[in-house]
Amino acid sequence: MPRYALTVEFDGRPFMGWQRQAHGPSVQQAIEDALFGITGERAVIHAAGRTDAGVHGLAMRAHADIEKPMTPFRLMEALNARLRPDPVAILDCAIVSEDWHARFSCTGRAYVYRIVNRRAPLTHEAGLAWRVIQPLDADAMAQAAGALIGQHDFTTFRSAHCQAQSPVKTLDRLEVLRNGDRIAIHAAARSFLHHQVRSMVGCLALVGMGRWSPDDMRAALNARDRAALGLNAPPDGLYFVRAEYP
Amino acid sequence: MPRYALTVEFDGRPFMGWQRQAHGPSVQQAIEDALFGITGERAVIHAAGRTDAGVHGLAMRAHADIEKPMTPFRLMEALNARLRPDPVAILDCAIVSEDWHARFSCTGRAYVYRIVNRRAPLTHEAGLAWRVIQPLDADAMAQAAGALIGQHDFTTFRSAHCQAQSPVKTLDRLEVLRNGDRIAIHAAARSFLHHQVRSMVGCLALVGMGRWSPDDMRAALNARDRAALGLNAPPDGLYFVRAEYP
Repeated sequence: MPRYALTVEFDGRPFMGWQRQAHGPSVQQAIEDALFGITGERAVIHAAGRTDAGVHGLAMRAHADIEKPMTPFRLMEALNARLRPDPVAILDCAIVSEDWHARFSCTGRAYVYRIVNRRAPLTHEAGLAWRVIQPLDADAMAQAAGALIGQHDFTTFRSAHCQAQSPVKTLDRLEVLRNGDRIAIHAAARSFLHHQVRSMVGCLALVGMGRWSPDDMRAALNARDRAALGLNAPPDGLYFVRAEYP
Repeated sequence: MPRYALTVEFDGRPFMGWQRQAHGPSVQQAIEDALFGITGERAVIHAAGRTDAGVHGLAMRAHADIEKPMTPFRLMEALNARLRPDPVAILDCAIVSEDWHARFSCTGRAYVYRIVNRRAPLTHEAGLAWRVIQPLDADAMAQAAGALIGQHDFTTFRSAHCQAQSPVKTLDRLEVLRNGDRIAIHAAARSFLHHQVRSMVGCLALVGMGRWSPDDMRAALNARDRAALGLNAPPDGLYFVRAEYP
């Protein structure tokens, strides 16, 4: 049965998250339902990552096995037509080998977290960024971010619901870039714990506000205790931006 | 009576345009109603430009005369609180002299028009950019844009409803910048005719699609005839970005 790899963009605002849920709409369900409408097959979609409610995707990678013979282009067009008006778009579709797995073959994941640092409420970007009213010192945030890069036990930055076997992860990139009142925090790793990016961003914001020093960030990491977490950033500003494969 | 100058960001999607309308919500009405709720005064808001339904503002300038004594900061905070949940935000507020007029003192206006050049539907940006499916040649568009810069009779690019006395305007900037599948068209002039930016962008898109040559653009301009217009771009991608004052 041919395996189709998809690149998916989605606006997380109306969804309970990527993963299918009993109690509300999900991106997975939207795509699976669209696939069923096209093929009559109940294919399961597997994704590189599972995003939480309100988190966005710019290029999530996913796959499904489909019996009905279709060119990838026709499948993409049919999916985009069926998905309307849900804010989910298939940016790319390709046939891959049967041992390619969107989740298990993935060797790198990247997120960006967008902050708008101003007093005024958001208009176009409501739900698409985190508005932080207190002036943020991006240089201090960048310095504190350095303490998190590398291999660490990230228990402090891990949700109680995290299903990962180990809290030890290797963070390859955590970069803080300021442009006017916009701050973008880029994070990359082979994989992340549940809530890890939002938890790291929340603590970076505390550093930016001057409520934490970069040393406090190091102490929080070393505590290996969820109780040491200062702040969990809201989902609004988080975007899954890239999945890497060998 | 003190005059307050406002800098306003707004999402044009839910509005019939900037200007107060009998038949639907407008940005002007939203701000005037918020002002009335704060001051009890029926102040009129004057703006640097009047945007159409669905057109956005990143930094529209406006003013109102208000009797009730308030610091600009308090007025801004009160307006932002009252404007919720409308997607209108006051980014700045200052007291200006009584001869400062948001519209008549304005010596320069700038817009940006955002195109997303791809097949897939828009998700986060639905209503916030123009999706163009046909591949666009941004270099050809930039070349054609050059023909419009300077002082011309822009009758071809003017709405039938335009109230300007003369169709002659001086276009200071019309720049086409591509970044991946994003194309931004920057336009600046002392003032614009009604629909001028959208009409220029629509014709630039025809050039980008290869349906018009840069010479066709020149011919359309020289025709000085609305019938020579090739295409009027939708409001979705248009943002008022800057008003200049001496």
